[in-house]
Amino acid sequence: MKIAFVGLGNMGAPMARNLLRAGHALIVFDLIPAAVEGLGAAGAEGAHSPASAAHAAELVITMLPASPQVRAVYEGAEGILAGVAPGVPLIDSSTIDPQIARTLAAAAAAQGNPMADAPVSGGTGGAASGSLTFMVGAEASLFERIKPTLAAMGKSVVHCGGSGNGQVAKICNNLVLGISMLGVAEAMSLGVALGMDAKVLAGVINSSSGRCWSSDTYNPYPGVIDGAPAARGYTGGFGTDLMLKDLGLATDAAKQSRQSVAMAAVAQQLYQLWSARGGGQKDFSSIIEMLRHD
Amino acid sequence: MKIAFVGLGNMGAPMARNLLRAGHALIVFDLIPAAVEGLGAAGAEGAHSPASAAHAAELVITMLPASPQVRAVYEGAEGILAGVAPGVPLIDSSTIDPQIARTLAAAAAAQGNPMADAPVSGGTGGAASGSLTFMVGAEASLFERIKPTLAAMGKSVVHCGGSGNGQVAKICNNLVLGISMLGVAEAMSLGVALGMDAKVLAGVINSSSGRCWSSDTYNPYPGVIDGAPAARGYTGGFGTDLMLKDLGLATDAAKQSRQSVAMAAVAQQLYQLWSARGGGQKDFSSIIEMLRHD
Repeated sequence: MKIAFVGLGNMGAPMARNLLRAGHALIVFDLIPAAVEGLGAAGAEGAHSPASAAHAAELVITMLPASPQVRAVYEGAEGILAGVAPGVPLIDSSTIDPQIARTLAAAAAAQGNPMADAPVSGGTGGAASGSLTFMVGAEASLFERIKPTLAAMGKSVVHCGGSGNGQVAKICNNLVLGISMLGVAEAMSLGVALGMDAKVLAGVINSSSGRCWSSDTYNPYPGVIDGAPAARGYTGGFGTDLMLKDLGLATDAAKQSRQSVAMAAVAQQLYQLWSARGGGQKDFSSIIEMLRHD
Repeated sequence: MKIAFVGLGNMGAPMARNLLRAGHALIVFDLIPAAVEGLGAAGAEGAHSPASAAHAAELVITMLPASPQVRAVYEGAEGILAGVAPGVPLIDSSTIDPQIARTLAAAAAAQGNPMADAPVSGGTGGAASGSLTFMVGAEASLFERIKPTLAAMGKSVVHCGGSGNGQVAKICNNLVLGISMLGVAEAMSLGVALGMDAKVLAGVINSSSGRCWSSDTYNPYPGVIDGAPAARGYTGGFGTDLMLKDLGLATDAAKQSRQSVAMAAVAQQLYQLWSARGGGQKDFSSIIEMLRHD
């Protein structure tokens, strides 16, 4: 299939490479010429704008930093909606506000292009190894149509319901994640301050009702889990600033729907504090460094 | 073995019955005469005070509501320390402040009685079925000595380190639990308000990094997990007021050790609000009722 791919950053570039490996023909665009050249060396054709990339494509995929870039790439004068042929499906894998995703999908539908939101989890490692999880918001028929292509970039493709629901699922999951990580960070810091061994404490929590991914797979206390970011100075992993962005989306969405998310709001403020104190580029579990004084 | 058991409430009475079933001789005390009579019918001997219950015992176990009762039962004029023979081990299974547990253990040690803190998880159901988890703070030799007796009341007996560490483990686990439950309640409420199906959302979270006991075993949204308190109007389970007590212990312990637990402090306030609004006796997952407006 001839696929237009726009947004060749830390996530988009390895995703596009996996589509090439799966045998698809790619026409790509990024604001940074070197990113386009990099994919060109791997066999992709370069384009001069999102509109020209989309022009001859049978499918369009975008992977961009945030809502403003997504709106510009789709709705700009040289944007995808200006160039794409009617009937061609559009997939945005960026993580953005669910309402903006729905507004964009409605605009695309109005000109005859079915559009899915399909944000991912799994990070740059998952993008490189093709083991991402796609959380897809789309009509059932569109979901079935795009699933095989997404499967070339991920190990799991989950249908979350209609337009925008992929974004809802992602921000709700990351809301729980951001909160539970802070809960584990507080518990581990407190327990050690009160005289407990960190590994023994984690063992109790992991076999009790406090069990969670943040404790049993990604424990923020150094020495508890081999291979977690805590074991390598909080390098790699999922950056504090990315968690901060997702909690910002969650609290914005909560405002729009008049939903109380007091814990998420406090978590957002704590990650913001940690980012301001220099932890923004570290893995988000590094927030325990702000809490520990042992 | 001849065991003194003091505190025959919703937890203590079934625990004592399991000791009788295991073949131990029991001498029991409770402030409520009917509670003593109930155990008497099951084969236990009644006593007139904690001191007299402890007098001829080879082991003493207590299960009381909170720190003030524990101090009174051990240190009062008619208390256990006034009646017990030197060398007899003492086990307190109440959930109390770790510092008070350590102070009491030091006082007991000073008169020749080794003392363990052994709070439990598993609730009244676990107490009745003998499937509690004991989190034990004690010297290693004392732990080995009391483990078989505790095993007659529970399926899991975990050594958490020295005196007080059983209490530390319990309040740290319940700190994570109270926080993650609120995180899941916020995510489920927000996701449904934004148009997602509750079961689909829980499925995404449970297979992603938001996975936790509060979501995959005890999800607060009705209809997601058969058998969870949410499926029966939040009856049974672990009451909001009990979670509130444990978060109070956690935030008190954090003050003593100058540890920041901002998320636990907000959680404590939210459960307090829910208790004040009538949710105190319901299972703690009912706090989602305060958040939902779908």
